[in-house]
Amino acid sequence: MAKRHEPLQLTPPDAIDRLRLARTEGIGPVAYRRLLGRYGSTAEALEALPGLARAGGREAPLAIPSYDQAERELHELARLGGRMIFAGMPDYPPLLALLDDAPAVMAVQGDPAALSKPAVALVGGRNASANGQRMAESLAADLARSVVIVSGLARGIDAAAHVGALQTGRTVAAVAGGLDMPYPPEHADLQHRIAESGAVVTEAPLGTSPQARHFPRRNRIIAGLGLGVVVVEAALRSGSLITAHLAQEAGRELFAVPGSPLDPRSRGSNDLIRQGAHLVETAEDVLENLPDHPHREGLGRIPLFAREPDPGAAEPPATWEEPPESPLELARARMQVIELIGTSPTAVDEVIRRCQFSAAAVMAVLLELELAGRVETLPGSRVALLLDAGA
Amino acid sequence: MAKRHEPLQLTPPDAIDRLRLARTEGIGPVAYRRLLGRYGSTAEALEALPGLARAGGREAPLAIPSYDQAERELHELARLGGRMIFAGMPDYPPLLALLDDAPAVMAVQGDPAALSKPAVALVGGRNASANGQRMAESLAADLARSVVIVSGLARGIDAAAHVGALQTGRTVAAVAGGLDMPYPPEHADLQHRIAESGAVVTEAPLGTSPQARHFPRRNRIIAGLGLGVVVVEAALRSGSLITAHLAQEAGRELFAVPGSPLDPRSRGSNDLIRQGAHLVETAEDVLENLPDHPHREGLGRIPLFAREPDPGAAEPPATWEEPPESPLELARARMQVIELIGTSPTAVDEVIRRCQFSAAAVMAVLLELELAGRVETLPGSRVALLLDAGA
Repeated sequence: MAKRHEPLQLTPPDAIDRLRLARTEGIGPVAYRRLLGRYGSTAEALEALPGLARAGGREAPLAIPSYDQAERELHELARLGGRMIFAGMPDYPPLLALLDDAPAVMAVQGDPAALSKPAVALVGGRNASANGQRMAESLAADLARSVVIVSGLARGIDAAAHVGALQTGRTVAAVAGGLDMPYPPEHADLQHRIAESGAVVTEAPLGTSPQARHFPRRNRIIAGLGLGVVVVEAALRSGSLITAHLAQEAGRELFAVPGSPLDPRSRGSNDLIRQGAHLVETAEDVLENLPDHPHREGLGRIPLFAREPDPGAAEPPATWEEPPESPLELARARMQVIELIGTSPTAVDEVIRRCQFSAAAVMAVLLELELAGRVETLPGSRVALLLDAGA
Repeated sequence: MAKRHEPLQLTPPDAIDRLRLARTEGIGPVAYRRLLGRYGSTAEALEALPGLARAGGREAPLAIPSYDQAERELHELARLGGRMIFAGMPDYPPLLALLDDAPAVMAVQGDPAALSKPAVALVGGRNASANGQRMAESLAADLARSVVIVSGLARGIDAAAHVGALQTGRTVAAVAGGLDMPYPPEHADLQHRIAESGAVVTEAPLGTSPQARHFPRRNRIIAGLGLGVVVVEAALRSGSLITAHLAQEAGRELFAVPGSPLDPRSRGSNDLIRQGAHLVETAEDVLENLPDHPHREGLGRIPLFAREPDPGAAEPPATWEEPPESPLELARARMQVIELIGTSPTAVDEVIRRCQFSAAAVMAVLLELELAGRVETLPGSRVALLLDAGA
């Protein structure tokens, strides 16, 4: 039987340039997409990068990985039994691809096909109660007979969900750091077991030690891989609620396991139920209410963390199809955009609405500012000013 | 200062006849109302009773209390510091009066005015967990600053609710037995403390030892006195869910405290939330959602215990304003009605719809059958055949 030439089908011809672009300092998934949209190819985008960063006000040269560096990352990953998957290729998880800020490249350990199966995310607090962990484990075991269980390899509920799922089916861990840096360290063995039948996936390059800022990005991958998110024991203002919020923004179904009001570890999950998430006692409660596809309506928008109302969210996204503005216009737009953005996250739509320049001009300016390290793009099409980088 | 002649204002001139009628074997609140509607006065209804019972097929004479017996009950009650309140009088609780089967007379210990204040019922299981009781007690204490707390004096959640309410405000106990037969016996002191500032109320005559069949009737009083019902720890198919169901039928708001799915004692309350009851963690969750008046819409009908759909529920109730049928017609209707009713509860509307006779004829026949002890009228305008009484 002839071996199928998998790498030829799943690795794009410009894989190394894609990786170089994705790994360039300050280029998030949104900037990556905009650059490809604007310049048509990774090679041309890479060439344009230094100029854009200078236009955004950057003084130091932009750190673009060399061809050799990118090639080395691919080889290192392969040596560890992993593989890179690329946005737009057949093995890229289709539900994740629906996110506005879907990762351009992800490193995967295990079977990448596990990322494309019908899945439910199961998340919750790290300081979970024994009952909460028991609940997560048995719920995951029951659900894993029908769907892949996605979680974040964290202590507490996440670990219980993976362990439960491994008893009856497959599970996927989305992690914040590099695949060679299991976190927490005591879950190294669990990560290995997950990869044996399912998959471990991350946006981070090898060698990345996970830091606080990586977790919201990891959370959006957890939310994006599943048709729904089940929250077990989440306190108010916890990371699990952020995952739930991101899932809801992506049209995924929300589920929560109720708990006693006397335990603050259930406040967040109870609150989700109060606001419309399905109350979950058994796997059937999830499976019966799990849609076949993500949806954009259904649950009302859940205001988890007092955010500005977003009446313009339904507007079509600005694209580079519009004619680019003149350099003078862009310079003016740049000043106004910087004034409009604060250090707390602002919706891009909001910036466009308040700015007297075209959406295309605003997007161009945001891209330059991001490349210059003066602006950060956050999940949910929001941007924030980075004060420590000058400006 | 002249003492106000309270008894003259609150006790109707035909109080003793009312009590005789209400205490007649087989006359529930619905039959009581129908009789008054048909005959215009209690005296005439009492006179017509024996004939109606015979028409329904009764052989033994109907046990109607004598004038002296009824008078003695009123005196006994007064001696215990209690008082009888009568439907239609100014001190009758207005929210309870809205029920189709509002009690015609009730014995009250304590301050009857407590029954007419804005109130919330708080009910739950007898075998409650320590946490459930703690929750009920603190929730009741917080709520009692704003509303009267109604419960059923039972062990577990009920007792905790009364105890909590006594710390900050007033509470009302609706009991199943006579006021002189505290149940459970160890709550005799609690009953006394409740009556000191609030009230204890019952439909049962003095000396009645509460039996299983009394509890659903007591539950409807609990549901009927409040603007809403809060359920804390109720198992599936528990009495608390019956109270919730009756409350919902009476247009009262439903609330439930969530609990871990691992504890079967919270299955019923979680189920209520799943079906639309407000999730309660704090008193504010109740007070913010408590309407000023009962409503008929809002929550969908909750099918707690698989019951027939009730599409005719919106039809106007049959009254005695319609001309009475001929004796021959009634005899025919009687046979058909008996065939239509089974031993499990059937909605009166359903019987009327399936019967070829007029609503007035069906109501007349049901009244006779009830007086003959062959049919029982149940809360929620339902009837059931009593097999042990012949037929």
